[in-house]
Amino acid sequence: MRIPILKLKDYLLVSVQIELDDKTALQFQEDILNKIHDVGARGVVIDLTSVDFIDSFIAKVLGDVVDMSNLMGAKVVLTGIQPAVAITLVDMGIVLHGVTTALDLEQGLDKLQQELEG
Amino acid sequence: MRIPILKLKDYLLVSVQIELDDKTALQFQEDILNKIHDVGARGVVIDLTSVDFIDSFIAKVLGDVVDMSNLMGAKVVLTGIQPAVAITLVDMGIVLHGVTTALDLEQGLDKLQQELEG
Repeated sequence: MRIPILKLKDYLLVSVQIELDDKTALQFQEDILNKIHDVGARGVVIDLTSVDFIDSFIAKVLGDVVDMSNLMGAKVVLTGIQPAVAITLVDMGIVLHGVTTALDLEQGLDKLQQELEG
Repeated sequence: MRIPILKLKDYLLVSVQIELDDKTALQFQEDILNKIHDVGARGVVIDLTSVDFIDSFIAKVLGDVVDMSNLMGAKVVLTGIQPAVAITLVDMGIVLHGVTTALDLEQGLDKLQQELEG
């Protein structure tokens, strides 16, 4: 199963609304990096509102997606991180340094626009 | 399988990136109407760029989604309709009167904002 990636102007929007198993997460990692390259995206908003549990593998993949996207020149904003997910991320030592977060998709998009357009 | 529905301000964004079988289409119909109700959406953009074939049943469901959303007070913009899909829709007699269309998601969102905000 693939997570749909929406393109809106220079940005990619992703709303994770299915349970992330290992295969889906890795497919997503590949898809998002390809899409960043294909459309020349400057920023990515990944909305995790519907994700209420992640394990260490998914947490690692998510951290990697952020780092890899940054390397490619696209800024990532994570939005809607639930309390349980925040706990897991920090427990796993994945502190996501330098990652912008926001409450929901629209605030994430606003932050991205502010940071990229000054 | 469910098609994710993203909320952005007063609008809902949907990008159909999986093959639409009958069950998925009906589930989508139910989900989008519930979401319109839940968030009080004023407009919906449904992007069909990745859909390169639809049958008569899916065409009917899609037409119904537009009519039902309109009844609920939400304007629907369909974007990225492929040539083959346009042919199928017209062949099936589903002309989607009064439906705004646009080339892609961002133009669809622009059109929606223009129409709803004057």
